Amino acid sequence: MSHNSFGHLFRVTTWGESHGPAIGCVVDGCPPRLPLCEADIQPFLDRRRPGQSKLVTQRQEPDTVRILSGVHEGMTTGTPIALVIENQDQRSRDYGEIKDRFRPGHADLTYELKYGIRDHRGGGRSSARETAMRVAAGAVARKVLGPDVRVRAAMVQLGDDRVDRSNWDWAAVDANALFCPDPAAAARWEERLLAARKAGSSLGAVIEVVAEGAPPGLGAPIYSKLDADIAAALMGINAVKGVEIGDGFAAAALSGEDNADEMRMGADGRVLFGANHAGGVLGGISTGQPIVARFAVKPTSSILIPRQGVDRHGRDVEVETRGRHDPCVGIRAVPVGEAMLALVLADHLLRHRAQNPDAPSEARLPRN
Amino acid sequence: MSHNSFGHLFRVTTWGESHGPAIGCVVDGCPPRLPLCEADIQPFLDRRRPGQSKLVTQRQEPDTVRILSGVHEGMTTGTPIALVIENQDQRSRDYGEIKDRFRPGHADLTYELKYGIRDHRGGGRSSARETAMRVAAGAVARKVLGPDVRVRAAMVQLGDDRVDRSNWDWAAVDANALFCPDPAAAARWEERLLAARKAGSSLGAVIEVVAEGAPPGLGAPIYSKLDADIAAALMGINAVKGVEIGDGFAAAALSGEDNADEMRMGADGRVLFGANHAGGVLGGISTGQPIVARFAVKPTSSILIPRQGVDRHGRDVEVETRGRHDPCVGIRAVPVGEAMLALVLADHLLRHRAQNPDAPSEARLPRN
Amino acid sequence: MSHNSFGHLFRVTTWGESHGPAIGCVVDGCPPRLPLCEADIQPFLDRRRPGQSKLVTQRQEPDTVRILSGVHEGMTTGTPIALVIENQDQRSRDYGEIKDRFRPGHADLTYELKYGIRDHRGGGRSSARETAMRVAAGAVARKVLGPDVRVRAAMVQLGDDRVDRSNWDWAAVDANALFCPDPAAAARWEERLLAARKAGSSLGAVIEVVAEGAPPGLGAPIYSKLDADIAAALMGINAVKGVEIGDGFAAAALSGEDNADEMRMGADGRVLFGANHAGGVLGGISTGQPIVARFAVKPTSSILIPRQGVDRHGRDVEVETRGRHDPCVGIRAVPVGEAMLALVLADHLLRHRAQNPDAPSEARLPRN
Amino acid sequence: MSHNSFGHLFRVTTWGESHGPAIGCVVDGCPPRLPLCEADIQPFLDRRRPGQSKLVTQRQEPDTVRILSGVHEGMTTGTPIALVIENQDQRSRDYGEIKDRFRPGHADLTYELKYGIRDHRGGGRSSARETAMRVAAGAVARKVLGPDVRVRAAMVQLGDDRVDRSNWDWAAVDANALFCPDPAAAARWEERLLAARKAGSSLGAVIEVVAEGAPPGLGAPIYSKLDADIAAALMGINAVKGVEIGDGFAAAALSGEDNADEMRMGADGRVLFGANHAGGVLGGISTGQPIVARFAVKPTSSILIPRQGVDRHGRDVEVETRGRHDPCVGIRAVPVGEAMLALVLADHLLRHRAQNPDAPSEARLPRN
Repeated sequence: MSHNSFGHLFRVTTWGESHGPAIGCVVDGCPPRLPLCEADIQPFLDRRRPGQSKLVTQRQEPDTVRILSGVHEGMTTGTPIALVIENQDQRSRDYGEIKDRFRPGHADLTYELKYGIRDHRGGGRSSARETAMRVAAGAVARKVLGPDVRVRAAMVQLGDDRVDRSNWDWAAVDANALFCPDPAAAARWEERLLAARKAGSSLGAVIEVVAEGAPPGLGAPIYSKLDADIAAALMGINAVKGVEIGDGFAAAALSGEDNADEMRMGADGRVLFGANHAGGVLGGISTGQPIVARFAVKPTSSILIPRQGVDRHGRDVEVETRGRHDPCVGIRAVPVGEAMLALVLADHLLRHRAQNPDAPSEARLPRN
Repeated sequence: MSHNSFGHLFRVTTWGESHGPAIGCVVDGCPPRLPLCEADIQPFLDRRRPGQSKLVTQRQEPDTVRILSGVHEGMTTGTPIALVIENQDQRSRDYGEIKDRFRPGHADLTYELKYGIRDHRGGGRSSARETAMRVAAGAVARKVLGPDVRVRAAMVQLGDDRVDRSNWDWAAVDANALFCPDPAAAARWEERLLAARKAGSSLGAVIEVVAEGAPPGLGAPIYSKLDADIAAALMGINAVKGVEIGDGFAAAALSGEDNADEMRMGADGRVLFGANHAGGVLGGISTGQPIVARFAVKPTSSILIPRQGVDRHGRDVEVETRGRHDPCVGIRAVPVGEAMLALVLADHLLRHRAQNPDAPSEARLPRN
Repeated sequence: MSHNSFGHLFRVTTWGESHGPAIGCVVDGCPPRLPLCEADIQPFLDRRRPGQSKLVTQRQEPDTVRILSGVHEGMTTGTPIALVIENQDQRSRDYGEIKDRFRPGHADLTYELKYGIRDHRGGGRSSARETAMRVAAGAVARKVLGPDVRVRAAMVQLGDDRVDRSNWDWAAVDANALFCPDPAAAARWEERLLAARKAGSSLGAVIEVVAEGAPPGLGAPIYSKLDADIAAALMGINAVKGVEIGDGFAAAALSGEDNADEMRMGADGRVLFGANHAGGVLGGISTGQPIVARFAVKPTSSILIPRQGVDRHGRDVEVETRGRHDPCVGIRAVPVGEAMLALVLADHLLRHRAQNPDAPSEARLPRN
Repeated sequence: MSHNSFGHLFRVTTWGESHGPAIGCVVDGCPPRLPLCEADIQPFLDRRRPGQSKLVTQRQEPDTVRILSGVHEGMTTGTPIALVIENQDQRSRDYGEIKDRFRPGHADLTYELKYGIRDHRGGGRSSARETAMRVAAGAVARKVLGPDVRVRAAMVQLGDDRVDRSNWDWAAVDANALFCPDPAAAARWEERLLAARKAGSSLGAVIEVVAEGAPPGLGAPIYSKLDADIAAALMGINAVKGVEIGDGFAAAALSGEDNADEMRMGADGRVLFGANHAGGVLGGISTGQPIVARFAVKPTSSILIPRQGVDRHGRDVEVETRGRHDPCVGIRAVPVGEAMLALVLADHLLRHRAQNPDAPSEARLPRN
């Protein structure tokens, strides 16, 4: 049963509210004897950290992670790894006015209807602040995957403006504040996003996540298919409204012959593919090709432009959200998307090993 | 751990291969004292059944379901409900030629890489035949949801041709072989699909699934959000490559103010929404609005047009798939999509009750 | 969530009522490429089968098992294995009189209180008939464990009469109808049990289960310790009221120095133990020694001697149970206990592999 | 999958090592709007706390618990409750000598064989220190159960010396350092335990746990029966080797007629029982009677009397355990046993509600 846990064998449980004393997670099922220290985790948190540019929320959180258990003399022990980050820059007074009112597009109303109570401060549990722990856990997942599996993400669309894929440069991604792989698009987007912020508005985005080097065979059909688990992982990120694998929705418009990823044998017994429309997953199982997924993030719901809402007492109210917010939550969703894909892959790697101890690590034929 | 189980409290485990003696499922966790008999399930299976028109596979399967346990004198008892369908029209000889070769776009290769063995006959476990049991289980899920929750689906795009939403007519959906809600589109599509079949090709599709009447509060944040579970449920259907909720990918192109689903109070304390861009889910929890999701189905991989593939021995081969196939697997995915949404909702209804026994069944304020 | 499922990675889901058309199970997560056919399972069912001697129920069930999925050309494929046994000798008329009355010591009342409905025929789902599927699944588990792991059980106490351990002979166990390892005790017990049956009474028993050859390292501390899972597995067998590991309750009376299982090194790096008070489990993890557990079975509740009970209408009634019953349900619990231990070990073997792929298969030092 | 999580709907995940910076847990699935603060939890921790008498370890830990999430303005919010206790009195230097050697009867060897690494300081993760978090979580579980359900425990046997049940006085339990309900026995035991400590030896114990007021219907047959889950919960406590429900092992020696808990109707529709041999559980479901379980704790393995062991290098060594230890770990297992029973009941209460929302809270007939 997962309310606040993710994964089965490599299992992460998170806790904490946006304006509580701390947030944290427990990583359970991590294999023993992997080198791990805070310095392995901190860089990923730093990429997601708020307050780093004019394009994200101005909340200042150092997001310094501490490992409280599960590591002995720099090595994982196989016991649960507790990670914790203390919250520092809570300015809950900004949120007094939303204590009793429900912001359109937010989880305020649904938490109230579900639980009859909510910690309104900064969105409480529903805040994207929780995703810091996903990024931290994702860093541990990368250790499980090992150096041969590379998980990266980039923003490929801001509002209705897409990158030009012929300009794709992974090196550019960390060189701009929008994780954009196309330098020309990055320049356009920055201008556009500042204008939206100034107008008190917000923008949506599409993120692409890619894992290279993942072995074939990952995925537990029928009901924990790799792509189904990726879909849940990405759709579960705050503000995400769509997920696709490989060609995704565009695949619906292809003919069967165009969609076929033809195969031929390489010199060394490796299976070579002519294309990757499938995004690295067939029948819910990885092929050994790059795993490619995209997810759509809606525009930030917290905006300064007044909208019609309701309050706890059943009255109509006008809502304009103060506090510090991201004009495009899609930006900080980039490292979160990476982390979620790493978590799914690490979990499936352990699951695959359990049932198939002699499984090959490459798509090579004949199998045995 | 789910390999072949779906859901937590309302939990379905399926078994069976396309050309084995039978397929079946166990529905565990069903509440007691619900009236249930085969006649409650059979109509849903009949909608999905092969061999009903020129537009689907010609395999003739009556798909007659039998209840073997969990029902006593026409009522569920709270014990596991076993459902079984005997396979009848297996023509495994058609598949002899794919015994050793891997069809592009199919699960043949990935099952081989994962398991080192596969039941090749008709695709074995990876065949969409398995989805018959999802439809059967979905019929039981509808009993749990009760008559006030209505789950329906329709095909909204064939290839690159979309329905005209101004023509939408739910009554039309069951009046054509394509589950198309737009009669004009249905006529175009039928012609197009027959042409594709004749050419030995295939087409993709997009399906929309809608649940009306579901109570607010369903969804278990953070890691079993309602939309995340819907995403997994739909992405896990054979040949699906994309899933979206509400406005989905289009939401990325909206501004924050346009995407906001404004609210006001109705006369009786009900919350009224001005729009449903969110597709009935906020913060991973249902709002009480219609739940709207769409999924993209790739064109059938089994085509008569030869494609380049490989075989078990590591040799290049040309593959052209004989056997009986659907020229558009999206058609029969329509009742399957409905079933999956019903399964997710039934599971979350039970989960919600467990943690919140006094939860309201409508979006009404003040809550208490 | 387990209502009717057992295990995590090697997972068994059973279904069926005592007097329904059939009983069955789905074995999910079985590794691929293990040879498996009905003949591997049937002998274990035959040991548990009713109607074989005067000492057990006279219901005649051939208990012929059929494999409906998950096996291709005599090998497991990694997909779910469905097993089914058709019920044949239901004599439900015998149970008409218990339709509305609750037998003392039975699940009749509790099923009614929980579900408000029950299939009374032969005890319905609560009947020990369900354990046939545990035995069938246990036979598959043995395949996973391989020939080096030997799981056996014997009855060590009937009523208050214990075996003399100095007479222990595993070969004797299958030579008498009571699975007694002490031929002298077997003779006494047979006489005693026939007398109890004649008197319309019943007797309890204690069963000992032993697994030899299980590797060290099995068990997932803290909350799925090997001994905790064994305890649940055995306590969950019908009519069981106590479980112990190793010295069990007797360990409470030992001093710390007497209870210590001292160790020394064998010539080849193996750890040799001076004793096995711990029953092969320390800290919830197997040591590599024989795993030894015992469980106590209460006397059969269905007896001909009238007892005071109540009925569905809230009236006092006298209950004397007709129908065909075992005078000592402990007898047929012997193969069931073996099966449950095999299931726990197979599940933990897969779990152990997932987290520790390079784990040693023997207690040998230094580990690396 | 539970490595370090316990429960399904009311789910506790613990983390932390004996000598790490802190220990903690996450309580997930707790219903919202229950009053909860540290003062609700601390008294239970104080009962289990070390250093309180000469009869337990002299480690001084204030065990002050902090709530870091899931509670807002003194009420649970339905989101995960993080609890943490900082370790203070770690004297790891005491344990230097066991860094490389495996103590007989301890988890040292099995952790090493399983993981190839271990945090040896104070037993690391295998230390009973972890049980503090069970007690903390158990205090939250009591809130879920409500004031009508009373969960208590007492020590009923020290070494081979049992209490006289005719002297049973619940008020006495908290009046002596051994949680003994029989004042006469308490005096004998104290003397005996001090002698054992002085001799460098240790003693075992048997604990009885009783829950009064639990509703009928709890328990999820077939594979999460209430008694099976209790058995796992209690067997999973450190050093426990046996568990029994109701009459337990003694039931094996009863005749069927003596073991029957006869029933008759009370004036108000309540079912009255003549006895409780079954310990409040029939068919794996609670009857509404007191739930009674016992568990046996082996003598502390850490003793000053030298025993033969081995070390990491595969050498024979003599082990005598310094450090601060309980001469009878059974004493502090008393509050832990209570907590585990409360956790099982809270989880099953939520599960029961989910599947049976209109289930009665008392054993009353007719049910409807």
